[in-house]
Amino acid sequence: MDVSQSEQPKNKTTVEIYNRSYTVIGEEDSRHVRMVASLVDQTMRDINEANPSLDTAKLAVLTAVNTMNDYLKLKEEYEDLMKDIEKLEKEDKNNHD
Amino acid sequence: MDVSQSEQPKNKTTVEIYNRSYTVIGEEDSRHVRMVASLVDQTMRDINEANPSLDTAKLAVLTAVNTMNDYLKLKEEYEDLMKDIEKLEKEDKNNHD
Repeated sequence: MDVSQSEQPKNKTTVEIYNRSYTVIGEEDSRHVRMVASLVDQTMRDINEANPSLDTAKLAVLTAVNTMNDYLKLKEEYEDLMKDIEKLEKEDKNNHD
Repeated sequence: MDVSQSEQPKNKTTVEIYNRSYTVIGEEDSRHVRMVASLVDQTMRDINEANPSLDTAKLAVLTAVNTMNDYLKLKEEYEDLMKDIEKLEKEDKNNHD
């Protein structure tokens, strides 16, 4: 997903996030882009509710920070799971040998 | 990770993202918070380089959109891996029975 022009854009979706329009160009289908946009919009509104004095730029940065934090946590869990699966596959292989 | 006041704040870390300061209060240690902040800052700078006309709020929203997209993709991969691991565990159990 990218906001810049691509040589072979596959999908172009316009979404509204926190009362502003964004055109997203990328491989993802419009339904997926709208879901992503709606989650970002909702997170901004949630952070705004807890911190009404923040301006839109700060709200958006903190939304990015929270999402990046969730992403890194999930990445760590994913890597742990990869290790588990490798171990199980090794055991499975040994049982079949 | 939250920007709002918590009753029992464990860590308070001040970070700089795109030339503005943010105080993050949460369970995560300061090193982790600084890494998250640095990734958000870098993503904003990358998007800015590709789209120099965007203002800070739009840059931050698009950073959140990109990160949310990465998060959802990883979540899908994580769920697929969970299914694989359940299958392997079942096979492993059958081999031990």
